[in-house]
Amino acid sequence: MIIVTGHIRVAPENMEVVRPHAKTNLEATRREKGCILYAYGEDLLDPGLIRIVERWESWDALAAHGKSDHIAAWGKVLKGIGLLDREVTAHEASEERVL
Amino acid sequence: MIIVTGHIRVAPENMEVVRPHAKTNLEATRREKGCILYAYGEDLLDPGLIRIVERWESWDALAAHGKSDHIAAWGKVLKGIGLLDREVTAHEASEERVL
Repeated sequence: MIIVTGHIRVAPENMEVVRPHAKTNLEATRREKGCILYAYGEDLLDPGLIRIVERWESWDALAAHGKSDHIAAWGKVLKGIGLLDREVTAHEASEERVL
Repeated sequence: MIIVTGHIRVAPENMEVVRPHAKTNLEATRREKGCILYAYGEDLLDPGLIRIVERWESWDALAAHGKSDHIAAWGKVLKGIGLLDREVTAHEASEERVL
């Protein structure tokens, strides 16, 4: 399994602008082959900071997602409103422990 | 590195009740040895669903966190208000790709 974690940051006043576009991307991505989990959450302490958590079946599935039309559209929206920060990293998972 | 992902769910009307307690736990945890990232985000589409993303230097650091006083206090708060769902899983990371 591939785990993706990270964040993007938008101006807090843009959260309601991005929310419907995020919804479109989230819903389309969740229908992708190999997508196990794909979610965005607004940081509890830091408005405008969107935490990212994803689980994918394989590197190939994640790569296909990166080439999808909906992720391209989402990227355009973020570019249009001004993305303030971004750090997104994928890791291949080995040992698993349920907490 | 150890990556923790998952979620907890509280009733949406309890978000403002849990927020200050989450802040206390987040701030104390971020000061722990071996904590690289520790964040909670409220799902953009699903109020009350708190997404969890953590990065730790080692299994030992994560285990020490699990025995901390602040995580015990946080657990009591969640038990007190009624935790509706919980799934939290740790994975040891092997290959890394920055996206």
